[in-house]
Amino acid sequence: MAQETTPKVIRAYAAQEQGATPAPWQYEPRQPRPDDVSIEILYCGVCHSDIHFVDNDWNMTVYPVVPGHEIVGRVKAVGSEVSKYKVGDMVGVGCLVDSCRQCSSCNEGLEQYCAQGVWTYNGVDRFDGKMTYGGYSEHIIVSERFVVHLPDGLDPAAAAPILCAGITTYSPLKYVGVKPGDKVGVVGMGGLGHMGIKFAKAMGAEVTLFTRSESKIEEGRRNGADHFVISTVEDQMNQAAGSLDYILDTVPVEHDLNPYVACLKVNGTYILVGQLTPLNPPIEAIQLVLGRRSILGSAIGGMPETQEVLDFCAEHGISCDVEMLDIHKIGEAYERMKRGDVRYRFVIDMESLKNS
Amino acid sequence: MAQETTPKVIRAYAAQEQGATPAPWQYEPRQPRPDDVSIEILYCGVCHSDIHFVDNDWNMTVYPVVPGHEIVGRVKAVGSEVSKYKVGDMVGVGCLVDSCRQCSSCNEGLEQYCAQGVWTYNGVDRFDGKMTYGGYSEHIIVSERFVVHLPDGLDPAAAAPILCAGITTYSPLKYVGVKPGDKVGVVGMGGLGHMGIKFAKAMGAEVTLFTRSESKIEEGRRNGADHFVISTVEDQMNQAAGSLDYILDTVPVEHDLNPYVACLKVNGTYILVGQLTPLNPPIEAIQLVLGRRSILGSAIGGMPETQEVLDFCAEHGISCDVEMLDIHKIGEAYERMKRGDVRYRFVIDMESLKNS
Repeated sequence: MAQETTPKVIRAYAAQEQGATPAPWQYEPRQPRPDDVSIEILYCGVCHSDIHFVDNDWNMTVYPVVPGHEIVGRVKAVGSEVSKYKVGDMVGVGCLVDSCRQCSSCNEGLEQYCAQGVWTYNGVDRFDGKMTYGGYSEHIIVSERFVVHLPDGLDPAAAAPILCAGITTYSPLKYVGVKPGDKVGVVGMGGLGHMGIKFAKAMGAEVTLFTRSESKIEEGRRNGADHFVISTVEDQMNQAAGSLDYILDTVPVEHDLNPYVACLKVNGTYILVGQLTPLNPPIEAIQLVLGRRSILGSAIGGMPETQEVLDFCAEHGISCDVEMLDIHKIGEAYERMKRGDVRYRFVIDMESLKNS
Repeated sequence: MAQETTPKVIRAYAAQEQGATPAPWQYEPRQPRPDDVSIEILYCGVCHSDIHFVDNDWNMTVYPVVPGHEIVGRVKAVGSEVSKYKVGDMVGVGCLVDSCRQCSSCNEGLEQYCAQGVWTYNGVDRFDGKMTYGGYSEHIIVSERFVVHLPDGLDPAAAAPILCAGITTYSPLKYVGVKPGDKVGVVGMGGLGHMGIKFAKAMGAEVTLFTRSESKIEEGRRNGADHFVISTVEDQMNQAAGSLDYILDTVPVEHDLNPYVACLKVNGTYILVGQLTPLNPPIEAIQLVLGRRSILGSAIGGMPETQEVLDFCAEHGISCDVEMLDIHKIGEAYERMKRGDVRYRFVIDMESLKNS
């Protein structure tokens, strides 16, 4: 790898301690390896997980933390063993940058379920033991297996959130086999939910959005939802009982799942993708037993499927609705995200890093 | 239907009030209909649900209640429209005696999920509005659709519990598609659990029994289990982590599901068939999300599958391990069942009703 194309020092934004707003910082990149792709970062989506890590909500943050796992950039250099990418390619990096590459999950392309998976940030490199740093940064070095091609025809900025919000909702809908005519409910319309609506619609389903707010109906319709249930109105919930084949729950905060589970048909599946707090919601077993219903969890997607979702988006003209962000406004963005005030994803324009 | 072959008054055992031991009682049968099969009851299994109904544990019992939904008997008369059964046939009746026969569940042969299903006892007849009475009785009248053939080669007494304990465990194992080489865990080895082991084994799976007691290992091996995990020994539970494709949880009382869920592989399914108390166990969502695991509920089985499980048992030489019971000892049997002291199902020999 032509070392000179990878900065000797990488400029980034890091949170230095619990709850600190990410601010300018820099670090030395790891030594490139033969299978590495060296990527200049152009755009990075801002995921709610970024805030959880900055705030140490999951009690596992190592500071300084450089968040960001919805990365789009351009290849600046490749190692001698890299075969799929060349300098100049537009590429993406999602939530994972490594895994054991040997277990059954890895062998099936389900690297996200590998017990030794390495997260894009706040992970530990398998070889040198150093922390990994994410996409709020000008550059990243990633093993070829964990890089995906950005297809032509996708807007690079709007494609960034597909690497997390997109794959997270696409993967379970594919896994359960959503097909034309199926009735799919989506709970919540944030970064994940609005992508879930688009995917379910593109797969041919009739889509019902569950939302607490009437004000979301118009936007929901624009995203592709056919029906709307205001979840705070008991009558509407009762009318929806037993009507859906699948429900994709994208709400990341504490809520009672059981009224939604009641909206599943016999044989229906309730899909959890959000990082629920608290982490152990009570489930009314009788609703599962007396209807052969199931609760399914799903995390992002493996590398082959991450490529697949990008290709699917290009084919179906799907992208994420984004609001562009200068990186020095990241604190403000976090505040707005905490209030749910973003339609639907902030994406950092990394040009702004040069001016900050 | 030759009315004289159906008793004008049916002798039965009923509980007259909450917690009362079932005792001799009699009732007038309903008027036979053209699609009815009139059955002399020879054997009836004693299910734990019988006790729950007698004790009104689910707050829905109408007294007097005649329990019993694991019924084997001989056809004494058939209505003019009955085509599948003739006088003298050995037949079975399980948990259901009617349903709407029009909804999508009924059309798919999943009558157990019909919203208007009529339970064999403590149900309400769809036509005359009277309560249904179960198998602790000399006779029962049931519509042909809810009667199954007892295949040759099955011991009639040992076959009775297949109508509930059998179908309840067979149905979900079939639904999830257990196949040779799969690793199946069974939690608990009572009436349901010991049948679950036999079915999973007959489907070609490698079977692990989770039990609290070392004393069950020898019996478990006899039932077909290959491996044993003493669930109270943390080391053994840790060793089993991530090892199973499916887990069939047959335990009907309060217990923490999460240590068992941890024993599922990626993509594994946890099957709930017991009537859990409490009815809303907390589920660690993260264990589902970070392994694409699911929790599936399942209730008994539909009529086609109830026939199928009997045929499967005949073909594979499977029957329930039973202890024969005189009906006047039903109170004693309930006490022993509450202590878990039965291997694995009491079956009432209905001859004993004549002498009581």
